[in-house]
Formats: sequence, structure tokens, C-alpha cells
Amino acid sequence: MNLKKMVGYKAAEFVKDGMIVGLGTGSTAYYMVEAIGKRVKEEGLSIIGVTTSHRTTEQAGELGIPLKDLNDVDHIDITIDGADEISDDFQGIKGGGAAHLFEKMVANQSEEVIWIVDDSKMVHKLGAFPLPVEVVQFGCDQVFNLFNRENLSPSYRLDEGGSKLITDSGNVIIDLHLDVIDQPHELAKWLDSVTGVVEHGLFLDCVTKVIVGREDGPEVIDVTR
Amino acid sequence: MNLKKMVGYKAAEFVKDGMIVGLGTGSTAYYMVEAIGKRVKEEGLSIIGVTTSHRTTEQAGELGIPLKDLNDVDHIDITIDGADEISDDFQGIKGGGAAHLFEKMVANQSEEVIWIVDDSKMVHKLGAFPLPVEVVQFGCDQVFNLFNRENLSPSYRLDEGGSKLITDSGNVIIDLHLDVIDQPHELAKWLDSVTGVVEHGLFLDCVTKVIVGREDGPEVIDVTR
Repeated sequence: MNLKKMVGYKAAEFVKDGMIVGLGTGSTAYYMVEAIGKRVKEEGLSIIGVTTSHRTTEQAGELGIPLKDLNDVDHIDITIDGADEISDDFQGIKGGGAAHLFEKMVANQSEEVIWIVDDSKMVHKLGAFPLPVEVVQFGCDQVFNLFNRENLSPSYRLDEGGSKLITDSGNVIIDLHLDVIDQPHELAKWLDSVTGVVEHGLFLDCVTKVIVGREDGPEVIDVTR
Repeated sequence: MNLKKMVGYKAAEFVKDGMIVGLGTGSTAYYMVEAIGKRVKEEGLSIIGVTTSHRTTEQAGELGIPLKDLNDVDHIDITIDGADEISDDFQGIKGGGAAHLFEKMVANQSEEVIWIVDDSKMVHKLGAFPLPVEVVQFGCDQVFNLFNRENLSPSYRLDEGGSKLITDSGNVIIDLHLDVIDQPHELAKWLDSVTGVVEHGLFLDCVTKVIVGREDGPEVIDVTR
């Protein structure tokens, strides 16, 4: 059983007629967009999608999902997206797909935020997955050196050609290899304060529902804070 | 007497042979770059400049000042730049020239930071000058609306054609019309935490020397914290 497809299709069931829907990015979100596209085509589901990357815009467009720019909606009812790691207390790391800046902006406007993951993404504490940090190109080596001095084990994300990967906003990604993040809120605050950091991949106190793909079926967890 | 020229030329005297020098942006910094260019040409002053905008790169290049990218230096000895407002306790607002992101990155690497201003920029408290905030284009209206809800009186910076001004990093500028900023550190922390904000124009605990242009001559103030 394809666990990513299982949770992608399960999540699409939470979308109702008339909703404005934030559409995430990545290999799991791909199936959710596919499932919503099917519902639009087969059931005549009427929604507006707000995408979080050029890739998702392309996929949703091909499926005939009507889209609006984040600037052109006054709210978002529900956002469905993948996650790279989810801790015991439902904090998350995102940005393995380098789209976490747009994903966070869309999630922030959403009344409901659903993360869809296979069960390998559920962890005790965050940090085994490298934490993505989006940084402006100008002077990015100085930010990299600062991370080094702070023992955050930085590495540049590279593209297929071996050059620094450039995001949809024209920035670079520095991944922090931390193993364990004991104080995610403190780390988030510090990263926010670093000049040159556009956005980091810590998504804290953000998700309202998690759908975990397991061999025996999808588990839907309502997150209450 | 041109007060901007007075302080620009005075500041250039603090540059010594062999230094790596951060070169600011704006109508006052323009004279400082001009003065350093003269010293390079006439005295054979040997320095490396690190610029903070495309405009300053162009000016310094024409004057024959050798330049390096911020990524290619391991420190900066001194940075000289203008400021839009300086308070009693030497906190500053910068970004009237939309270059505050690069200016802050360069200042952060500098052992000495000199601000050069005419005396009209010296104020009791910050805030009469609109506070510039650099914001990513994607979803910028949502950030604008948030500023509105927080009663921060935002307006988009426009270019000469009446479109949103785009910075050297491809972002927009939202100016906050605050009149008085009572708690600059708290405001800075909050702005840092807003998703979509790349950098704001509050420069706190940053400057080490201020040169104020007055009709009777330049006043040099050493800032001790």
C-alpha cells in the first residue's frame, strides 16, 4: 500500500464545497492535489485553491482546479500539506521541498491546517531531519559562518547541477543538522532574529489535524492545544 | 554649507590604509564614497570596499575603489552609512533608500559602525520617519493586512511608475507610519517573528560613532553602551 497516496486521498475528503483550500507541496501533497482534482472533475466539487509553489500551481492547473493568489483571498478555510517530521507534541519541520516560506504564509491564513504523513515521519523529538533555513543570497556565507560558530552544522542545499539551490523567492537554503532540537521555540526565535534569514522550517503551534498513514489504514488525529 | 557633504568627507578621514570598509547607500553616503574615492586616487589609499546596494557598487566602481562581495571577506573594519533617524539613545531607523537589508548584513560584520547625518535626523524618540519593512512578494497583502489590524498604518513604497517598488533582493517595502516608537526592541522582535518579513529598518545597539552635520561644523559622538 502506498502510504503517501492513502493519506493524500483521505485528506481530500475533508474538503467541502465552496472552500478556499491551501494546497501544499511535496511527494505526499501531490496525491492530495490529485485527489482534489478528481473530486472537482467527477463530483463537480467547487473550490478555490491557493498554491504554495510553482510545482503545485502547475499540477493543480493541469487538473483544472481553479486557483487564486494568496494576495487575492481574504481567508483560507483549510490547508493540507506534508511534513518532514512531526514530534510527540505535534510541532513540525517542513522545507525538505524548499517551499516552506510559501507554505508557512498560506498556513498562517488558514482556519484548519492538516498535515499528511506516512508513519516514518512521526518522531519523539524534532531534529533528525535537517532543519531548512531560507537565507537571502547577499552575504549568505556570513550567515553560514554564524551557524557554524553556533555549532548548528550547516550545509548548503544544492541543486542537481551541484550549485546552491535557489528557491521560488530567489533565496538559498541552509540545512542545519541538529540531531535533536530540545527547545524549538527558542531556536525559532533566535533564527527569526538573524539578519539574512527569511524563514526557517520550524512550524510551531500550527497544525490542527494530523493524518498518519499506517499499513492498517490512515489514523486521523485532532490536535488540541 | 552642504551638511551631508560635510559629514561624508569627515567620516572618510576615519578610513585607514589596509582596511575593509562597508560602504553605505543614500544621499549622505554618496559623499562619503566620493571622499574615499578621492583619497584612493590622490593619496594612494589602499582599501577594499564592501557595498550595500547596486547603486553604491556602481558609484564605487566608477571611482576606482577595489570591491569585494560580502561573502568574500572574513571581517569588515569599519562601515560608514547614513541614517534616516537617530534617537537620544542612538537607536536608528534606516531604509529610506530601500537598502536596509544589505546595510544591516554589512553592519553586522563590522567592528566599527559610523552613521553620518545632518542634524535634522537627530530626534528624541524614533518613529516620525516611516519605518521600512522589507517583505517577500508572495502574499505580501496578507502581511499588509496584519499590519493594518495591528494599527501600524502601513503603506506600500511605490516606484516612479506608481508600481510597488522592488528591492535589490526582489522584495517589496511596506512603510509603517508610527509617529512614535516607544518600545523599539519589542517592535523589532515582533516584526522578526512575522512570516514574510525579510528585514525591518530598526537598527538597534548597532552604531559605535555618529557624525552630525551642524552649521558650525561636524560633531563626532562616540557611542558607548
